[in-house]
Amino acid sequence: MPTNSLFNSALTTFAISATDELGFLDELHDAAKVDVQAFQDQRDLHGPSLQALLEVLAHAGVVEPVGTNPVILTAGPEFDEVWLNKGYFRWLVRGYGQMLSHAADFCDPAFRATTNPMAHRDGGNIAIAGKDYGGHFVDPVVEQLVDGLRFDVGIDLGCGSANRIIRLANRLPDKHFIGVDMDAGAVRVAREAVAAAGLTDRITVLHDDVRNPSDHPEYATAEVAFSFFLGHDFWPRDNCLHTLTRLRHRLPKVTDFLFSDTYRSPALDGGQPPVFTLGFELTHALMGQHVPTANEWLDLLEDSVWKLCDRRPLGIAYSDIFHLVPRQPIPTPVTGDVMSSGR
Amino acid sequence: MPTNSLFNSALTTFAISATDELGFLDELHDAAKVDVQAFQDQRDLHGPSLQALLEVLAHAGVVEPVGTNPVILTAGPEFDEVWLNKGYFRWLVRGYGQMLSHAADFCDPAFRATTNPMAHRDGGNIAIAGKDYGGHFVDPVVEQLVDGLRFDVGIDLGCGSANRIIRLANRLPDKHFIGVDMDAGAVRVAREAVAAAGLTDRITVLHDDVRNPSDHPEYATAEVAFSFFLGHDFWPRDNCLHTLTRLRHRLPKVTDFLFSDTYRSPALDGGQPPVFTLGFELTHALMGQHVPTANEWLDLLEDSVWKLCDRRPLGIAYSDIFHLVPRQPIPTPVTGDVMSSGR
Repeated sequence: MPTNSLFNSALTTFAISATDELGFLDELHDAAKVDVQAFQDQRDLHGPSLQALLEVLAHAGVVEPVGTNPVILTAGPEFDEVWLNKGYFRWLVRGYGQMLSHAADFCDPAFRATTNPMAHRDGGNIAIAGKDYGGHFVDPVVEQLVDGLRFDVGIDLGCGSANRIIRLANRLPDKHFIGVDMDAGAVRVAREAVAAAGLTDRITVLHDDVRNPSDHPEYATAEVAFSFFLGHDFWPRDNCLHTLTRLRHRLPKVTDFLFSDTYRSPALDGGQPPVFTLGFELTHALMGQHVPTANEWLDLLEDSVWKLCDRRPLGIAYSDIFHLVPRQPIPTPVTGDVMSSGR
Repeated sequence: MPTNSLFNSALTTFAISATDELGFLDELHDAAKVDVQAFQDQRDLHGPSLQALLEVLAHAGVVEPVGTNPVILTAGPEFDEVWLNKGYFRWLVRGYGQMLSHAADFCDPAFRATTNPMAHRDGGNIAIAGKDYGGHFVDPVVEQLVDGLRFDVGIDLGCGSANRIIRLANRLPDKHFIGVDMDAGAVRVAREAVAAAGLTDRITVLHDDVRNPSDHPEYATAEVAFSFFLGHDFWPRDNCLHTLTRLRHRLPKVTDFLFSDTYRSPALDGGQPPVFTLGFELTHALMGQHVPTANEWLDLLEDSVWKLCDRRPLGIAYSDIFHLVPRQPIPTPVTGDVMSSGR
């Protein structure tokens, strides 16, 4: 790709993320046409900045002028695909932009020794971004799968903002859900969202480390478990096996575990990788996190207390839902620490 | 452009900047082949991070594997153009990455009221980047022009690191140069660079505001003046005219003024803009700075004490050297403040 295309594409990426954040992309999606001056006035925005961002989008074919006085923009040929994928751009720019800008620093062991790489990501924006692309590329598959399962109580391990269980609770009005997250901020946000949705009678949010769950009595009630995009955090392999065993013991009634993650893409084949893939792999390399391949997952599951009974691709590249069921009977804990919490 | 190309191009941009910063691009340029493990060991780098960055470059055709055990990389089809333009990527990612990531904030007047937009750029990295692309796209034209001029003393208004006058002093061993910069840090760096080059007898660096120069006696000795990429900082128009008048009075012996700047690109014509242009215009919009068009410059020069006698394009798009000569005689100051300093 010519250098100017690379350079301009990077700018387009920044401009997509910023105009998404400003609500412009949703406005254009909903209204089909936007009067730029009116949009700017309604939201009290700095005109030259907004206009320069839209100029970048116009050069990239994301928006198209249909009037000049006043300036009216409509969707350009690239708009639909950009709008559908805007969460990935927000993820890249606002979630990981700081880390990626300083990628050279992350190559320096002295820098790594004095910083927590995770502190250079923006968890709030990553959650907002994930809600967007998850809504397009994950939720429809999950809902289809969940509709085929019989259960009264579902548990979401690593529930984040509780967005997904709120959707499910609204869809399935006779069921209860438990959300678990290790991040206190996420738990607060999740509880507020559950209250705002009027679902406190059917959704409980717990603050706990999924990798080493404590013995909340609620856990024993769950019949279906979910986990989305958390699995690679369980690695290295042995730690992951232990976590899966601990979960098996803490969730004795669970008959179906929808365990979803993004795995490492196959080696270079010369084609252009899909959106997200290279970004996911680069940021996790910078954070020092191993991203397992699909085969590493399948191999691990062979040795786990959970048995793979189905595998469903998500709309996110190299991302599947592994439909797991418990192997019978519950095996004896391999090590003494399995049932103790707080390690 | 498909969404995945946009997304991957943004990652490539980050990876070009980071591998430039790590010295990898220069190493590959000089050595034609690089053993990745050896490079990593020599510089004590975090392997997974380096490898993930190079993986991104491989997908973009910037590097190409020619051996796998050990991994040997050579230049891919895009390498030469990327290497030549790497300064622009460093400028974008390290110079303005933080500002561009938070572009939505810059649209918010409340944010603008409480921050200095300039504080969100990284001046040090912008200087490093400018030295790189300036060496490719500016210096050859400047040297050709300077070779045609007769003078003993040249002055660089806004000399930054003094890189350009050090080059000129080395090229023209019988001439003296004065550098002027308003940034105390730049002056310190420039003086150190002049000393390191052994040129303290032929280069003087002054700390002064070019927009309102004081009456350093050295100014009266200069016969040729240069100014690179500073002119748009002189605007609005009336301020710029005043500055040009002040300079005319402070530099009475100057017969040639090589005044170089990047001007605003013409309106959208559907083509892909060249490298740098959109980035320059977007960042200056975010900083609230007007970037004049070529016609605005030509119109202003008509009213100025300097007369345009030649216009030479640089290798940077929409960037020219305006070759100015003084109109005779020196006009009477328009306002009383022209000769007073310190305003």
